[in-house]
Amino acid sequence: MADVGGVAADHLRSYIERIERLEEEKKAIADDIKEIFAEAKGTGFDVKAMRAIVRLRKMDKADYQEQEYMIDLYKHALGMLEENAPAEDDMPPEGDAF
Amino acid sequence: MADVGGVAADHLRSYIERIERLEEEKKAIADDIKEIFAEAKGTGFDVKAMRAIVRLRKMDKADYQEQEYMIDLYKHALGMLEENAPAEDDMPPEGDAF
Repeated sequence: MADVGGVAADHLRSYIERIERLEEEKKAIADDIKEIFAEAKGTGFDVKAMRAIVRLRKMDKADYQEQEYMIDLYKHALGMLEENAPAEDDMPPEGDAF
Repeated sequence: MADVGGVAADHLRSYIERIERLEEEKKAIADDIKEIFAEAKGTGFDVKAMRAIVRLRKMDKADYQEQEYMIDLYKHALGMLEENAPAEDDMPPEGDAF
């Protein structure tokens, strides 16, 4: 094995090239994902909301509920619920939102 | 197609699930890459330096040379070259480093 400056160059090159091939595959998949989002956007879906949903579905149910609870708590604390809601009557009863 | 609250639910679900499948594939590849780095580390290679090399090899040659030149310029400006270099005599002559 070629040893260049104390480094097993062939070995290193082989690792680097394997990583590069996998990085390329990863990029191709990332591009596919982008295309699906673009297609969904073209059909009228909101991409930001879709990304949020994908993120939320990744979490387990307990984590999800805890995060939603905390966000709701902070919204209450900062008076953001009234501002954002279209009408007070449309809001689900407190503690029943999830 | 099911329309829930004004949203084409089946259509949305199909997009989300396609994205999730691709995200899983992407994660599997990312895990493979991590394994290669771990294996390389086990053989004695420095993972940070390997990551830097992968990043540099992604850049085209002109960008790479410009970045290396700028970093070198800033190292000079901040007096970092003398500190880092093992010995002044080991440094390549200025302007010939690449």
